[in-house]
Amino acid sequence: MKTKERIISAALLLFNEQGEANVTTNHIAANLGISPGNLYYHFRNKNDIIHCIFLQYRDHLRQSFTPIEGPASSAVWIHYLDAIFYVMWEFRFFYANLNDILQRDSELHRQYLEVQQELTINLQLLLRELNRQQVLMIPDDEVDDLTEVLKMLVSFWVSYQSAQSLNPKISQSVLYKGVSRVLLVLKPYFHLEHGSELANLMAHYQALAATPSDPFHK
Amino acid sequence: MKTKERIISAALLLFNEQGEANVTTNHIAANLGISPGNLYYHFRNKNDIIHCIFLQYRDHLRQSFTPIEGPASSAVWIHYLDAIFYVMWEFRFFYANLNDILQRDSELHRQYLEVQQELTINLQLLLRELNRQQVLMIPDDEVDDLTEVLKMLVSFWVSYQSAQSLNPKISQSVLYKGVSRVLLVLKPYFHLEHGSELANLMAHYQALAATPSDPFHK
Repeated sequence: MKTKERIISAALLLFNEQGEANVTTNHIAANLGISPGNLYYHFRNKNDIIHCIFLQYRDHLRQSFTPIEGPASSAVWIHYLDAIFYVMWEFRFFYANLNDILQRDSELHRQYLEVQQELTINLQLLLRELNRQQVLMIPDDEVDDLTEVLKMLVSFWVSYQSAQSLNPKISQSVLYKGVSRVLLVLKPYFHLEHGSELANLMAHYQALAATPSDPFHK
Repeated sequence: MKTKERIISAALLLFNEQGEANVTTNHIAANLGISPGNLYYHFRNKNDIIHCIFLQYRDHLRQSFTPIEGPASSAVWIHYLDAIFYVMWEFRFFYANLNDILQRDSELHRQYLEVQQELTINLQLLLRELNRQQVLMIPDDEVDDLTEVLKMLVSFWVSYQSAQSLNPKISQSVLYKGVSRVLLVLKPYFHLEHGSELANLMAHYQALAATPSDPFHK
């Protein structure tokens, strides 16, 4: 891995573990055993590093929330729901502090809004396709508002959990709980025929949410 | 109004209009035409003022989200939904910056968690009573999780809206949109018999959300 990539990857790890506000460029350099000067050769400042992490976030959203191809099987649901989990987990420092990070960097905020706009359109298409396949039965004039509720739920789940405890610990199980809340909001719209599939999905994510420790590390 | 109350009331107004982070105790004193010394006679610091505003927030939650008495008419629904709007509007500075404010004051955070716990229990009782009256039909084992989704939606609607624009303006119509999202999440659980009542409620709050200006001031 090149130095620039090593810096991005160490920064992401430190931001997620210690909170972005508590990590300076000096911490990142020290963590990698490189000099601050070396870090500044690659990045002007911390925001510059955050921009690069943001590009990873954007790529993940673009690659994961593409339209469905073929029938919506359980595997397809797991693909999208796991992608929600992954983005919340991998970029949890970003969600934990979203408004602060966006407010201090209007260029980043502008790019964030662009990506959100794309994502909104993709999610609306996805729900309409699930309607068309008669997996979901969302009234057509409610698809856009429901998409917004789901986006909001995912975007602020980490913040909500942080407010709910004096010593919040954003563990994987907390985030799987968020994923199962997405399913809960969609549950009333599932076609009866897909009831057992839904029940299996709910059970799958509730089991992951009930796992106290984080069994795997990337 | 006594000086202490005037300070609390001016601080709330300034926090809401300019954002809590941008308002100092000196701004508050200047706004009232009193000396900083006079303000410090009543409050040790800004957090001390925020504590007093928090007590108003707590009182509002305690008074507004009490259990239903009698049958759940449209008037009852409007009571609760207007109370949601009121708390989001009246304390919007708090919601705009919830995690920052809580993280820097663990005593406030502790009291916040106490109030949230009370509120959660009251909302669960409320949904169960609406189930009992056959207005809603929420599966009993989903009441608690659905309560959490609704609480989260209300608590982070202001933050979500702030992230969604480069120059966010938290207007009353934006918050009424939040109220209509609460109805949207509950809509699938409404008993068919109450369909027209629900449609009227939806139309009422969607009309308020579509009003571009803020027609009234408290």
